[in-house]
Parts: sequence; C-alpha cells; structure tokens
Amino acid sequence: MENQHIIRNIIVETPSKPGNFAKVATAIGMGEGDIGDITTLKSGALTTIRDISVTSKSKKDFELIIKNIEAIGNGVKIQAISDDVLKAHEGGKIAMKSRYDVRSLGDLQRIYTPGVASVCMEIVNEPDKAQYFTSIGNSVAIVTDGTAILGLGNIGSVAGMPVMEGKSVLLDQFVGLSGIPILLDTSDPDEIVETIKHIHQGFGAILLEDIGSPHCFEIEERLKAELPIPVMHDDQHGTAVVALAAILSACRATEVDIKTARIGQIGLGAAGLAICRMLMAYGVEEVYGLDRQEAAKERLLHYGGKTIDSLEEMMKNCDIIVATTGVEGLIKPEMVRKGQIILALSNPNPEILPSIAIAAGAAFAADGRSVNNVIGFPGIFKGALNAGAKEITYPMLIAAAQAIVDYTRPGELIPNPLDPAVHYIVARAVEEAVTKEA
Amino acid sequence: MENQHIIRNIIVETPSKPGNFAKVATAIGMGEGDIGDITTLKSGALTTIRDISVTSKSKKDFELIIKNIEAIGNGVKIQAISDDVLKAHEGGKIAMKSRYDVRSLGDLQRIYTPGVASVCMEIVNEPDKAQYFTSIGNSVAIVTDGTAILGLGNIGSVAGMPVMEGKSVLLDQFVGLSGIPILLDTSDPDEIVETIKHIHQGFGAILLEDIGSPHCFEIEERLKAELPIPVMHDDQHGTAVVALAAILSACRATEVDIKTARIGQIGLGAAGLAICRMLMAYGVEEVYGLDRQEAAKERLLHYGGKTIDSLEEMMKNCDIIVATTGVEGLIKPEMVRKGQIILALSNPNPEILPSIAIAAGAAFAADGRSVNNVIGFPGIFKGALNAGAKEITYPMLIAAAQAIVDYTRPGELIPNPLDPAVHYIVARAVEEAVTKEA
Repeated sequence: MENQHIIRNIIVETPSKPGNFAKVATAIGMGEGDIGDITTLKSGALTTIRDISVTSKSKKDFELIIKNIEAIGNGVKIQAISDDVLKAHEGGKIAMKSRYDVRSLGDLQRIYTPGVASVCMEIVNEPDKAQYFTSIGNSVAIVTDGTAILGLGNIGSVAGMPVMEGKSVLLDQFVGLSGIPILLDTSDPDEIVETIKHIHQGFGAILLEDIGSPHCFEIEERLKAELPIPVMHDDQHGTAVVALAAILSACRATEVDIKTARIGQIGLGAAGLAICRMLMAYGVEEVYGLDRQEAAKERLLHYGGKTIDSLEEMMKNCDIIVATTGVEGLIKPEMVRKGQIILALSNPNPEILPSIAIAAGAAFAADGRSVNNVIGFPGIFKGALNAGAKEITYPMLIAAAQAIVDYTRPGELIPNPLDPAVHYIVARAVEEAVTKEA
Repeated sequence: MENQHIIRNIIVETPSKPGNFAKVATAIGMGEGDIGDITTLKSGALTTIRDISVTSKSKKDFELIIKNIEAIGNGVKIQAISDDVLKAHEGGKIAMKSRYDVRSLGDLQRIYTPGVASVCMEIVNEPDKAQYFTSIGNSVAIVTDGTAILGLGNIGSVAGMPVMEGKSVLLDQFVGLSGIPILLDTSDPDEIVETIKHIHQGFGAILLEDIGSPHCFEIEERLKAELPIPVMHDDQHGTAVVALAAILSACRATEVDIKTARIGQIGLGAAGLAICRMLMAYGVEEVYGLDRQEAAKERLLHYGGKTIDSLEEMMKNCDIIVATTGVEGLIKPEMVRKGQIILALSNPNPEILPSIAIAAGAAFAADGRSVNNVIGFPGIFKGALNAGAKEITYPMLIAAAQAIVDYTRPGELIPNPLDPAVHYIVARAVEEAVTKEA
C-alpha cells in the first residue's frame, strides 16, 4: 500500500564525545531511514540524550535500524522508542472551541438566551446577515465517503478521519478557517448529493476529499450545479493547481513555453484528469492523456483532451511529462527524452526517481515530495469565502497557481507550505480573480 | 414572540458624586429595564463612566429608558449605546481549532502525510481505535431543522444558527465537548432520519435541538432505534431532567413526597410530554396532563399518562403544577390551591408570577428563569460519551436529575449553571448509571 511510511522517535543516549552521534546517524542511514527533527533532551558532561524522528519504508526496515544502533556499542544506548504520530492523534487533532469564555451570567445572556434571540431575528429579517453573525461563512465541510483515503484505498470514512482532521488542522493553522469533517456512510452518488444538500446551509463551502474515481466526478459536478456555495474536490482541483504551479515553475527554470509545449499526462484518475483539464483551461493546446482504462480516456476526450495509447509513444512525443499512476518505476530511464521535463508525482514512490531522470537526459525532474498539495486548498477556500464566491472556477484556480509560481524562489519548485505568507497570497489572488470575473 | 428581549449596553457618564448612579439606576428601573453587569470604565475626580448592561422587554421600553436617563440632567450623559450581543456574534461564536500548532515539517508529517496513514491503518485493523485516535468520541452533532427555534417558531435553521452555536459554546465551556451544528434544509422526518444516518459516523452523539412538535417525537424515536450512538432531543429530555430536579428540589423544601403526589402538567408540547414521561419513569404514579390538542393528550395516554380536561379541575386536584404552555398569565391567582407547588416555566413570561402564586397560597413557586436547562445537556452528553453508552436511557436521565438536586443548596431550586463543578457531577452520575445498567 502506498503512503505506508512508519515514523517513530528513537530516544538515544550517546557518550558526550564527538563522532558518536555520527555513528547513530550512519546506523539509521544504513537501515534506509530518513532522519527528521532531532531534539537534544539532555546534554551532560558524560552523556547526551537525543530524540530522533526517523521515517522508514516498512516495519522491517525500522527493526533493522534499531538493530544497527544497538550494534554500535561503546555506550550508545536506545532509551526508548515512541510513536509520536499516534500520540499526536490521541483524543483527535481538532476540537470545536468557543471564541468566548463564559464566566458570568452576563456572558451567558449574550452568548445564549435571552440575547441570542435578537441575533436570530436579525437573520430572519436579513438572511445575508448570517454571514456576519454566525460561523457559517468561515466554515468548510470536509466531506469524504472513505473510498480513496490517501493511497490506502477504500478503507471507509471513519478510518479516514485522521486525514480529514489533518485537513481541518491545516485550514485552521494556515488560513483560520473552520474545517468540519463529515463522514459519509454511503458512496452512492445520489445519497451523497442528497445528504450534502440537506446539510449544506451550515457551511460556507464544501471540500470533497478522498472520494474515489469515477463517482467523484459525478458527485462534484452535481453538487457544483445544485449548491449556491463553492464546492471543490481537492484530489482533483487542489492537486491540479499545485501541479500547474510546479509545471510553470519547471518551464520557467528550463525556459520552455508551456502554451506551445506538448504535455503528456500519465494516469487519468481524479488527479490526472483534473491536471489535463487545468492545463487546457490555462491555454495549453496539446494535452495528451494515457490510461489503461478506456472509461478514463473517454472522460478526457469528453473534456476536449487528446489521448495517446502507449507509454513509449507518449514519452517520445511530449516535452513535459506528468505522472500520477501510483506505479513505482513505471518510467524507464531509456524512455526519457533529452531536455524533457518530468514530474513523477506518485507518493511515496515516484514513476521515476528525479536523479535517474536527470541522469537519463531530462532537463528537469521532480517527484511528489516537492509538489505538496497542502499549498493549494487552504488559500483557495479562504479566497473564495472572502470574496463571497458562489463557486470555484478555472480563473480562480489558475490565479491560485500563478500566485504560487510568482511566490516561488529560483531553485524551488513550489514554495514551502509552512511559510505563513503563501496561503494568504493564494487567497488574495483567488479573491481578486472573483472580483475580475464579476 | 417569546424570548424577544433586548439587551443593550449603555455607556453613561455621571459626575463623581454619591447619588448620581442611583439616579441612573432609578431611570432604568422606571423604564422596566433589568440591570445586568456594570463595568466602571473610568473613575475620575470629576466624572465616572460606566458600561451598564440593560435588558428590556421591547424596543419601546428601551427607548423610554434612554429618555429617562437623558432627563436626569445635572451632568449625567449617555456617551454611547452598544449592542454587545450582536458584537459577540460577529464572525460567529465558535471555530474548529487544531489542538496542535503546525510549525515545522516534522509537525506536518505527524499531523498530516505521511504520518497520518499509520493512524488510519490502526483504525482499519481495530475499528474501536477511532474512539482514541480521532475526535469522534468527543463530538456531538447539534442538529436542527429550524422549526422551533427558542420561542421564535419556525424561522429556519440558518436563522437558528446562533442558538446552535450557543449550545456548542456551552458544550465546550462546561464539559470540553466539540459541538458541531448541523443545519438541515428539510423538516421531513424521513429525510432528516436518512441524512443524520448518513453522517452519524463522524459523531459520538446526536443532540436534536429546536425541532418542532410533533415531528420531533418521530425523528428522535427513529434515530434512537437506528443509530448505535446516544441521541437526545434536548427540548424534551434535557428540559425534563432539569424540571424533575426542580420539582424534587421544591418537594424537599416543602417536605412533599413526590412519589405519592398528584402532579399536573399544563401543556403537552415537546417539553411537557417529556416532563410527564420523566416523572412516570421516576416512579410518580399520578401524572396528569392537559393540552388543547387532542393529539397531544393521546400521546401522553400512549405513554401511560392520564389526562384532565380542564385547567380548573387540574389546579383543584393536583399537589404539584408544572406549566410549559408559553401563555403568559394562564394561571389565575384564584385557581391556586393552598400549599400547592407551582412551576410556571414558560419563558420569559410565566403562566403565573411566583410572587402572585405565593400570595395566593402556594407553598412554593418558581418560573422559568430559575430552571435553566443549560444545567442538563452538557453533563448528560459528557457522561454518556465517557461511559461509551450506546443510548441515553431514563436511568441515566434520572441519575442526572438526582445529581443536580443533590448539588442544590438549600434555598436554591437548581444550582448555578456557571458553577464549573456541577456539569462534571452530572456527567459522573450519568456515567455511573451506565455502569450500573451494564
């Protein structure tokens, strides 16, 4: 299964002599572990204790790392191994909080009865006031049916809740929006559309998340058509915004003109199809798609795209390749054309490693780790809500992608999503796009 | 309309001499205004500025108060009038917040991808772990169709949002639960039941709120039967818990034995019927109900209650009277029997003022202001969720009422809901009741 990385924290005590930590780091590297944050817990005259975050591809790899460290000897000791990921999830990652402390009877009367009745009547008399006097305009429903959770597949919406809570965390932390997970017990499009319609009034926007293909297409289109608020399937359009930004960035670095380039999209699932549609909306004329499934190719044709039937032909004919297949190593080095731009976006294992692609002659190559889609949706929703948009349109999404590119420093593919400014820059660009459309 | 009180804050400047504030207070009293919190904003040698919260029954009354204050003269000046209730509602009263700050890439990896995948898989392998590693077990959906918002009637669920947010504020502030408003766009029982069923997995419990009678009965019963989590209509059972506590309190004060008393319930709407059912569940044998509507009386008969056809007969025959009709002054002083206990609970204007009831011979009398139902639902839900209860039963509700009574000091009818201990005492009693039942 995809994305099944293991993150653990290893608490290691080493003698306080130069070189000991390097031995630990080497032991981790030998076991194919990625070292993350390191916190020095104690720095004593005799020994030093460090908390080292390590990412492994499997439990087996991780066990090897532990063995490697234990084998160092010379006073190097593992004091504890902790699962900080699981710890961070205890009790859930989000909570609905009051924005006011209720300490006095006066507070209670203002926040609840009898005061609240006058606010209800303000809204009865002028329904638009609900935008100002309730949290609705600041709330995004994060809706999933659990059929395509990360790369884990159809594990159900409850098992997908940690992802929905993660999205809610990012909405709060990056742009101050209220993300409310809605876990559906059905994946029937009719039932999903009906259910969301019946509860939509409580939200300013709908973020569809990890809903499988192909029913995600129908569900999004119907909700967009029937609801008066922005609806966006992040796996499609959020991903496509970030992919477009990355492609523009890569074109800038290699001085390729995206609009006249031939772009080949390998894999026409939710993300792949949306990337094609985004490129066409941006004005790229030659967008080619490839997929094993006929239905997927037909969807692309329906939206005005072109298809190519073999991987070899696509690699031969296209200047820019984007891959979202989930198939590790699908692109062989011998297929790479000189000067090609290759974005192999499958996580955690790309269709071709960037180093291999570059060695095979690519002008530019990146994998999914450098194209983190958390840079898209927070600003897109913030901008749409700020503008009071009724829907999310291609001009808004393209404005978001352009804002991301403009904020990208030379040498980067997209900005660091932890830069607090980037989400507000995206939001502003989206808001301005709404104003321009109006 | 009920509950249509006006709360305003008047910023008044008075010369810093004794007696001036008393004049202002008198002016407010003469205009039938209730003085709430008073904050001294400035206490100077020459003048003092105070922020006075005033509750009026109508805009006209409030305008009279302003005129009265302006008429004082002698340097008494109104500097500003503000609507602090509306101000407190700007942007809404609640927000979904992350429980963690995301500051580093390590945070992002723990809270979101790739770390989150391992938490999803924990839940796939052991579904019960969703209780520990998500916010589900701490979340209560606050569901309304907007058909009976406070005493304002069928104003729609969006206009009712300030009330739902108020409930959410109280759940957070009193017991640390996450209350998620769900605003329905339908009042059809089939559609409501279907919708809630489709989204119930994301919540630990369902709080039905301000859903009108009679469809509230069907909706609650069906959801209770079909969902594996606690469901409670607060206007019915939350109110009934607090009413039972108040009746028990009144009986204690007057040394009446509730179980052998004849209790008359005037008004068999959602609250009235639930109070009757609660009393019967508690073991009271003679519970009589009165309502203008035949269907309401039939519902009571269906649950094993008795009915009385005239108000006069009920007042003559019953030792304890509970009224929830919304009809101001319905009970005339000449109807009051000597030694009667009378709880006239309609808000803000009771069926008989306590002072009048006492003057007419009642042994004990109270109105809705002293029976605030915010003392019930937070602890009931907290206890049910703590215990992992699948439903909310009468033994749990009776345990809550008993805990409230036990915590009530002599001279009080129920405890102060702002006492932070009371909600935890209720929660614990409910939790223990679950354990006893099991």
